[in-house]
Amino acid sequence: MAEKGISNAVIKRLPRYQRYLSELKNAGVERISSGDLSRLMNVTASQIRQDLNHFGGFGQQGYGYNVEYLFNEISRILGVDRDHNMIIIGAGHFGHALANYERFEQKGFVTKALFDIDPDRIGQTVRGIPILDMKDLRSFLMENSIEIAALTIPKTDAQAIVDILVECGIKGIWNFAHLDLKLPDDVVVESVHLSESLMELSYRISEIEKQKSEEDQ
Amino acid sequence: MAEKGISNAVIKRLPRYQRYLSELKNAGVERISSGDLSRLMNVTASQIRQDLNHFGGFGQQGYGYNVEYLFNEISRILGVDRDHNMIIIGAGHFGHALANYERFEQKGFVTKALFDIDPDRIGQTVRGIPILDMKDLRSFLMENSIEIAALTIPKTDAQAIVDILVECGIKGIWNFAHLDLKLPDDVVVESVHLSESLMELSYRISEIEKQKSEEDQ
Repeated sequence: MAEKGISNAVIKRLPRYQRYLSELKNAGVERISSGDLSRLMNVTASQIRQDLNHFGGFGQQGYGYNVEYLFNEISRILGVDRDHNMIIIGAGHFGHALANYERFEQKGFVTKALFDIDPDRIGQTVRGIPILDMKDLRSFLMENSIEIAALTIPKTDAQAIVDILVECGIKGIWNFAHLDLKLPDDVVVESVHLSESLMELSYRISEIEKQKSEEDQ
Repeated sequence: MAEKGISNAVIKRLPRYQRYLSELKNAGVERISSGDLSRLMNVTASQIRQDLNHFGGFGQQGYGYNVEYLFNEISRILGVDRDHNMIIIGAGHFGHALANYERFEQKGFVTKALFDIDPDRIGQTVRGIPILDMKDLRSFLMENSIEIAALTIPKTDAQAIVDILVECGIKGIWNFAHLDLKLPDDVVVESVHLSESLMELSYRISEIEKQKSEEDQ
């Protein structure tokens, strides 16, 4: 267990390593050098060595990394070596899109139900997953072991639902609502603020434009 | 213009400032102290002062920030003081969800069309926005001024489409496909890797569990 005190920056890079290692593993690659992994992932070999040395003992000079071992270790560190049951709050287009991603299930994130307040949606299924009545959220959570809730509802309704989720022992919230949730310290939240990500894109487009117009002068 | 040399960390925080300032502005608030903004946003007042001082001249000791001025300046820096035309590649659930977000339009990101290869989808509209044939992508881009393309298609098809987008002068790609795109330096990409974000969530859930079990021992 050499993973104490790993910086957030390294942690944030682990899913990307996991993704590439998963592809290498599926392609039947057994070993890979930091140089080859570097070219594949378009980061420096020294960055890779630094990152992976945090976990100790993976690499061997002149011999490369054992792909499956590294994949398994990173998966374990990320907590994706076991399944996580998930529910999706909101069965609109976005909720449907999340429920339709088989990829999440392959990574061990298994959606057990969607919840909605719209009578036309309640009772339908998405890829075999039932859309349930939001009224039944509390009893469903009491009867099923659910770790993660994805929130795809308008911000006006979000905090009230979150309070129920927390009361019922949810461990993590995957938040697509446009607000910062109030949560106890032992419930983690990962927010995906799509319009903020669009604004970052727009900032970087503006920067490039500015550079170009300065070069033209 | 004091915005040269601003760190990425600050830039990444700007959309959140913009979001809160937009809400304050809409609520009719004219001025706010760094202390009040700090409590609202749940970051330290000193962080706020440090961040906003990068842009110079916004705050005034004992008088607070002018909300509208600060909102306008940050919007300008983010490039959202003007409209950006956008297209969405892929009219599945996820493409539909993006096209349905009126919020993006309010921020100046105006979706002009979706593109798909499915004959059942082509010819339909989403909130009045047409779903066009992927075959017509090139000619559409030649005839319309489009800055941003959102990619919501499987990774196997993504790079070929990206090559067309780049050829036709797209400036930014909002990438939801699970691969790292190959792009020239003057085309920016903002990737939203949903399964990586789920893995970060799962990592942090594991960390909390570990802490709890250590405390129990």
